[in-house]
Formats: sequence, C-alpha cells, structure tokens
Amino acid sequence: MTVTVPTSAAMVRRPAVLIGLIGEGVTPSLTPPMHELEGARHSMNYVYRTIDLGRGDNTPEYVSQLLWSARRMGFTGLNITHPIKQAVIKHLDELAPSARTVGAVNTVVFDGERMTGHNTDVTGFGAAFDDAFGIVAHGRVVLVGAGGAGAAVASALAARQVRELVIVDVERERAEGLAASVRPAAHGQVSTAALDELPGWLQDADGVVNATPWGMAAHPGTAFDLELLTPNMFVADIVYRPAETALLEGAKARGCRTMSGLGMAMHQAADAFEIFTGESADRRAMLADLETLVADEAAGHPAHVAPMRGTN
Amino acid sequence: MTVTVPTSAAMVRRPAVLIGLIGEGVTPSLTPPMHELEGARHSMNYVYRTIDLGRGDNTPEYVSQLLWSARRMGFTGLNITHPIKQAVIKHLDELAPSARTVGAVNTVVFDGERMTGHNTDVTGFGAAFDDAFGIVAHGRVVLVGAGGAGAAVASALAARQVRELVIVDVERERAEGLAASVRPAAHGQVSTAALDELPGWLQDADGVVNATPWGMAAHPGTAFDLELLTPNMFVADIVYRPAETALLEGAKARGCRTMSGLGMAMHQAADAFEIFTGESADRRAMLADLETLVADEAAGHPAHVAPMRGTN
Repeated sequence: MTVTVPTSAAMVRRPAVLIGLIGEGVTPSLTPPMHELEGARHSMNYVYRTIDLGRGDNTPEYVSQLLWSARRMGFTGLNITHPIKQAVIKHLDELAPSARTVGAVNTVVFDGERMTGHNTDVTGFGAAFDDAFGIVAHGRVVLVGAGGAGAAVASALAARQVRELVIVDVERERAEGLAASVRPAAHGQVSTAALDELPGWLQDADGVVNATPWGMAAHPGTAFDLELLTPNMFVADIVYRPAETALLEGAKARGCRTMSGLGMAMHQAADAFEIFTGESADRRAMLADLETLVADEAAGHPAHVAPMRGTN
Repeated sequence: MTVTVPTSAAMVRRPAVLIGLIGEGVTPSLTPPMHELEGARHSMNYVYRTIDLGRGDNTPEYVSQLLWSARRMGFTGLNITHPIKQAVIKHLDELAPSARTVGAVNTVVFDGERMTGHNTDVTGFGAAFDDAFGIVAHGRVVLVGAGGAGAAVASALAARQVRELVIVDVERERAEGLAASVRPAAHGQVSTAALDELPGWLQDADGVVNATPWGMAAHPGTAFDLELLTPNMFVADIVYRPAETALLEGAKARGCRTMSGLGMAMHQAADAFEIFTGESADRRAMLADLETLVADEAAGHPAHVAPMRGTN
C-alpha cells in the first residue's frame, strides 16, 4: 500500500509534527516507527525522535531542562517513560484524568506556554482490554506485577466493571501501595495478595493479567506456574516482544481467551497520536504496522535507525 | 507532480531528518518549506523548525543552551542567522573553509559529540553568481553593503576571478573591516569607497552587487541612483522578496545582465540540505519551489504554518 504526497507548496502547509520519547533505553523502541508510519498515512511530515537518558539524568533540574529544550526547539509533544514518568509531573501545568489517577505521565503536549500530561498507557491498556474481552462485567481479575506497567493496568481495570481486582507482586508493599492508590476510583473491590497465595486466588478468577517483565526476550519464562490456568479464564499479557509469550502459549494450549501486549502498545501510541495531532488514528493499520515491526525485529531487521548525520 | 511514499516498515528505515533555524524574526522564513519540499522529493521524513529569538537571547550562555538543546533533542543540524552567526562560532569544534574565511556560520551539523560550522551563504552566493554570469574573469565589481550578507558576498567574490573588488557602505569603517578580512584570500585587489564616491567607481565597473536591504518589501527603493547603471554592466541583488526589485527592473530596462536574490536563497538552502543529508539536492526543483513560495506569499498565502498543537 502506498500514500501519495503532493510536492507542491500546498504540501508544506500540512503542519509538520515533531515528537520525542524521553527515557532510559528508548533507542530500540517501536513507538517511533509506529508514529511515523501513521503520520505518513495522514500525509504528515512527522518526525519522532528518541532522547535516551543516562544514569543520573532524572534530577528535577535535568527534567526541567529537557522539557524547556523540547519546547524551545519546537516539539509538538513528548512521550515519557521510565524513570521520569512521575518526576515529570511537578513541571506540568495540568494533568488529564488518565494521568491524575495513576500518578504517572507518559504523554506531554505543549500548547503555547502550557504543558499538559496524559497517560495513554492507562487508556491504551483499557482499549486493548475492551477489544479483547468486551465491555462486560468481570468477576475477579488477578493482576501480577505492581510496577509502572502494573499501575497503568490497575488504573484501567479499576475504571471498568471488575467486581474484584487482586494485585500481586513479589514486593507486597508495592502491591499495597498500588491498591491504595486505585481503590478510591475503583468500581469494585481492590485487594492484594502475596505471590505464594496466587494459586488460591487464581482458582476462582475470571482472568489474569501479567504486568511483569517475565516473557520478554530478555526475561524468558513466566511469572507463575502455567498449571494454575484453567480454560474458562482470560489471560492478558502486556509483554509484546515477543507477541507470543510462554504465558500466552500455555493459555492457548489450555483453551483460554488471550490478549497479547500488542494491543496496549498500539493503543497507547494511537491515543498519543490523536492527542498530538487532533486527527483520528487508523488503529487497525497501526496494529498491522506493529506486527510487522515486531516480526522484522525478531528476524533481525530492527526498524528504527539512527538520525541521519552530515557527511561533509 | 507527486512522489509516492511506501507505507511499509521499510519506509521508516529511511532516516528522518530534523533541522532548526535559529535567529531573530525567522518565523516567516521560506528556507523551512524549501527544505521540507526537497526532503519530500527524497522520500525523507524531514522536519524543519524555526526557533525565533527574542531580544537578549544572544548571550554566550543562551547560545550554548540552544546548541545543547538541539543536540540533546536529536536534531541533525541547524541553520543559524542574525544575530548569532558570529556568536555561535566559539561553541563549535570545527569550521569549514566557507565559514572560516567570512568569520560567520549559517549552518551547524552535529556529528556525535562534534559540531561543525559551515557558511552556505558564501557558497550559495558563489554558485548563484557563477550560474548567472559564468565562471569567467571579471574586472571591477562594486559591492554595496558590508553587513552580514555583504560579508558573504565579498567572501565569495574574493575567491573568484575578480580583478578589483570595491566595497561601499554607509559606514566606511565597516567597509574597511570587511575589506581587511577578505583581502588575504582574495585573487584580486580589494578596496573600499565612500557612498558619495560610488558614481566614479561605477563608471568603469563590470558589475555591481546590492547587499543592502534596499528593495525588500519593507525597504522599498534602491541603494543608489539607477542612472549610474550602464548597459554593459551586470547587476546582482541579494534581495529575493520580491524577486524583482526596483534595482533589477531598472537594470533590465537599461539592458544589463541581472541576477535576482532567488539563486542565492536557493543555493544556500541546497548546500545546507546536502551537508545535512549527504544527498544531492535537486536545485532546479528547489528554485521552482522558491519561486512558487515567493509568489504565494506575495499573493497573501504564506507557505509556512505554526507547528500543530494537541487539541484534547
């Protein structure tokens, strides 16, 4: 498929969009190519840069300097990731509800002198979850992992028809902290459990969500024993590289409904694209792009390249 | 005419290019659309931002901060204009010959930790001059205007077969300073004259170059009396908005060979494009774009728009 871009002066009147992703280890992220491909479909001149942080680049002064730089250099907005999703908040003028509830920001948009923070991990997981399992009432849902990704998942699930959300983490206090933060806005009950209590809680669960790094290429394996899965359960993973984790393979073998991390990864990018541009993202096409990008990467063809440098 | 951009993952592997123009009053510049249109012809994702300086934004600390910001935010390079073409030099690691001779930089390219300064006003005027009047020996050439643009013109002319370059400015010392700086590298003689001596110097001149703001939309008129022009003279103007200045109209009416400022404006952008990308610019197409942009602007349709802002 191709898009046709007119090369007349009229084309330049199409606003150019400039986005950055700030965080540690962001260089290989697939979010930049997802945005640039969607921008091309909209005939936009859309550049998405990665700004990779080193150790110690998360002091308040440094974060403030990064935001100043991005705004002064004409960026439309930013995506923000670990380790400054919380640290960025105090520099912003306003928080969207998605960011306020979870206390973390992954998207900043510049509007003149104002900076507004959003969290499209929350809205992105929510949309992927609805796509996969429908907008219906759920019983008990067990969330494994209460880190940054777990917080976004918990915030999205708390806003849905979930009778009981059980948060499990190797650090019990982290689970309790997250439960306390989402409980006020939750439709149902929110509790926590220790990892060794997981078998009991999963027995009567409607579904389970993995928000740990288990299953990533660098962390092969699963967060818990696959024998704990039963066929009537839904199983969701936030890991998307690979898209087919050991958890999801095991779940499919047992006949469970499953959801890979691709949907969340796509929807968080699509939601940010819409915030940045004010135009509707083609989510079906973005998901197809992401699948291609993940497959290309798995085949040893990383999608994103370093910025072009002058040669003379 | 259209170009076709493939929307597969392969398209994203085409490096994205991010350029900024830093200076006072740069927002309406036509250089950004020239670059973005040429980038589109190369199927590049090419964004060119303007960074407009306020009064006082030219301190060494501020200039250093701007360079740091541009590099940290992943810019490929920068164009630099008034008032920091000289001020930027001390922050750079290296100067190309074009910038060294004239002591001013209009193009900075980032290559890892190194920053190199170029001056494509010098190379751009030179290329335009050769296009217009041929690579031949010239006798006496009178340059009117010894400011920033005049310095680029003098530097380009000094490097050409010009037997005698006469620099004229309302401030005689400015003319003398410029003459002193280009004399060491000049092929021919370099002298200065006061504005009231211009009639005498023009009498036996082969050509004259206007490097003053006279003729711009905001400065209507000419730097000197058109009666001083004779038919065997070439007449060059660096003003390009409008492309047809009163000086060039008068020169054409007298049968002089003429050169508008469009050629320099195009070549400086094309030279910078090649430095930034390492690819050959389509100069014929860039000139056609610039002509369209200038005509669109004259018709009340400015070509460049503000960056897109988020709407929700």
